[in-house]
Amino acid sequence: MPSLEFFRLKTREEVLAHYDRFVPVGVEELDLASAGGRVLAAPISAPEDVPGFLRATMDGYAVRARDTFGASVGAPQYLEIKGEVPMGVAPTRGVGPGETLRVATGAMLPPGADAVVMIEYTAEHPDGTMEVRRAVAPGESLLTPGEDVARGETLFPAGRRLRPQEIGLLAALGIRRLAAYKKPRVAIISSGDEIVPLDANPRPGQVRDSNAYLAAAQVAEWGGLPLMHGIIPDDFGALRQTLAAALMAADLILISGGSSVGVRDLTLTAIQDLPDSEILVHGVALRPGKPTILAALGDMRLKPLMGLPGHPASAAVVMEVLGRPLLLRLAGAIGHSPWGRRVPAVLSRNLAGATGREDYVRVRLRREETTLWADPVLGPSGLLSPLVKSDGLVMIPLGVEGLFKGEEVAVQLFGGC
Amino acid sequence: MPSLEFFRLKTREEVLAHYDRFVPVGVEELDLASAGGRVLAAPISAPEDVPGFLRATMDGYAVRARDTFGASVGAPQYLEIKGEVPMGVAPTRGVGPGETLRVATGAMLPPGADAVVMIEYTAEHPDGTMEVRRAVAPGESLLTPGEDVARGETLFPAGRRLRPQEIGLLAALGIRRLAAYKKPRVAIISSGDEIVPLDANPRPGQVRDSNAYLAAAQVAEWGGLPLMHGIIPDDFGALRQTLAAALMAADLILISGGSSVGVRDLTLTAIQDLPDSEILVHGVALRPGKPTILAALGDMRLKPLMGLPGHPASAAVVMEVLGRPLLLRLAGAIGHSPWGRRVPAVLSRNLAGATGREDYVRVRLRREETTLWADPVLGPSGLLSPLVKSDGLVMIPLGVEGLFKGEEVAVQLFGGC
Repeated sequence: MPSLEFFRLKTREEVLAHYDRFVPVGVEELDLASAGGRVLAAPISAPEDVPGFLRATMDGYAVRARDTFGASVGAPQYLEIKGEVPMGVAPTRGVGPGETLRVATGAMLPPGADAVVMIEYTAEHPDGTMEVRRAVAPGESLLTPGEDVARGETLFPAGRRLRPQEIGLLAALGIRRLAAYKKPRVAIISSGDEIVPLDANPRPGQVRDSNAYLAAAQVAEWGGLPLMHGIIPDDFGALRQTLAAALMAADLILISGGSSVGVRDLTLTAIQDLPDSEILVHGVALRPGKPTILAALGDMRLKPLMGLPGHPASAAVVMEVLGRPLLLRLAGAIGHSPWGRRVPAVLSRNLAGATGREDYVRVRLRREETTLWADPVLGPSGLLSPLVKSDGLVMIPLGVEGLFKGEEVAVQLFGGC
Repeated sequence: MPSLEFFRLKTREEVLAHYDRFVPVGVEELDLASAGGRVLAAPISAPEDVPGFLRATMDGYAVRARDTFGASVGAPQYLEIKGEVPMGVAPTRGVGPGETLRVATGAMLPPGADAVVMIEYTAEHPDGTMEVRRAVAPGESLLTPGEDVARGETLFPAGRRLRPQEIGLLAALGIRRLAAYKKPRVAIISSGDEIVPLDANPRPGQVRDSNAYLAAAQVAEWGGLPLMHGIIPDDFGALRQTLAAALMAADLILISGGSSVGVRDLTLTAIQDLPDSEILVHGVALRPGKPTILAALGDMRLKPLMGLPGHPASAAVVMEVLGRPLLLRLAGAIGHSPWGRRVPAVLSRNLAGATGREDYVRVRLRREETTLWADPVLGPSGLLSPLVKSDGLVMIPLGVEGLFKGEEVAVQLFGGC
């Protein structure tokens, strides 16, 4: 018999603490061109210097800086133009005292030169001399080898999500292939005798399989691969068989629906009947979202199963609050999006909290002059439309009786990864 | 001869004003399962009510609310249990005065019932009666037909990006196919004699094609389809031929590189040599990003071309500030992400602005107790690493001399769509 403790509602922190048991899914090798948004599975060090050579960052003239000292519009210096450095090749000659070569942005500096005079501060004369109207310091308008990245430098740790700028830097280093964590495969199962497929015409008492579509879209947005496992009636054998198949196919199982007492019991029994299964959480201290289940399945590599509440708003909130961190854990992402998911706003009305539960209220953001208001969008958690009208969630912490109109709140935005 | 006006740097607003000329790319029909993140090309109205029937939102008993009036723990009411409503079917009998039927969450209410008593407030007796310990009001713990969405209601306008909750609502309505704007195809061309492919071993004076990879990753992140058109040497014929091919294949052309005077002129000449081409912008009042080009190409449907600066940080900023809105315009997205891309933070040092230009400074966000600091990440725009160390951009407006340490700034975050 499960102990009483077993049925105590678990806090969000208690649920998240269980995630340490689950390890990132496997590794695959990817081409850099398709690695945007993916998570590195191994640290990357710079195999070479970037830039690889002394490089002009302006159009102008390669000079020895000391040759320009004292130059001004009133007292220019004159240097002898010895030609130009073509793009993409090493210069065939150097710059001696009193000499200069034309360079374009990105060209390699010739030996002897230690600065570039921008074209704006020069004039060319018919006798082949260049007039310098401004002194330059050594190092001006150029990049030194390794200034962007030095050879051997550790660039990124494992767990780093690759944004466009990371892709750009890896391209500059010639890193064409890299090891990334695979996208977690997420089996999505809908359960319930009342659920019918999208293309069915529901009879009275029946509803379409919307929660599975919502969860699948969240999974895809957060970098997972949703696998639709269809609709299972409230039948032990069918449920157990589908769970076993999902366990083979996926890294994470989401079972949606079954929030009524009888069906929830059926789901629990079917999970417990799988070999090496362990129910970790049964009921969470969240509102909405109480009838959430977390289990660990399998004997080799543990795989998580999350049982989502049947009400769409409850399921969506549980996915945001508990499902997303679990998916990112499996995806190997560390330090993911510490910013940007939370926007400060001012609450536009009083909100009462839920006793003994962390309360998540849907809000819509509204800008009025310089104030960003968070307008609560209320409605039972059986409805989808309040979720559609919302931009994010405001959390009322456990033990807080409520939040007041005019208080600054952190709005946890929907979306992003 | 182009007028002097032509060469005046254009402000961001002046550049954006040109985007009205370009229309969203074509429309395609999509399955709902692959429509997450896509943009609706036509408004959607509800073809039916959701829910379609009177539906219990709690496990309990379907009752006539008036039969529970006055019930309390001390003075319960008693109703006769007439059976239960199975899930997914219409009840075969109604609830008369003094009667009740068991219902689970999601079940259809029987005729006569107008409320659900939660199981927590009841007890069943061996004689087949149910004890009610709490009065319920009509409508309690149920959803009425059309309460979520009413038939005929306009749900979403064209231009709405579909988040997971929109997908869920469309699923509930049985909308399996929908019209979405196609993903804009974006041709990416790198130009420059010094640019070599990723797998080449650059000789002195050569650099790898990193800007194209950076731009492609941005395009993909923002919902476009990057098409790599390779590296073109600084040769008029090759450039013109590639531009003509890109114009056939893509909805938007990005040409990266060519920030040196000579090459920029070559790019401009090649664009002008295309039939029905018009240079709209040549030089923008942004720092970094000045040598940006915007052109309109083609005679039937105008297609935009954007010439990006050669320095990686300049190209990345121009893409964020000017490229992203252009891509979203072509993608048909309206009212995209008004929130969440900007996070308020406190500047950690003084910043001087750029005379006559809107100045974009890379910043890294750092939380210290309750303060979110924006730390400027300085460095020449020829470097990639400062971009990699940054979370977003702070803009110093045109005409503002600078920003002060301790000032609150809006950080425009990288990423998202």
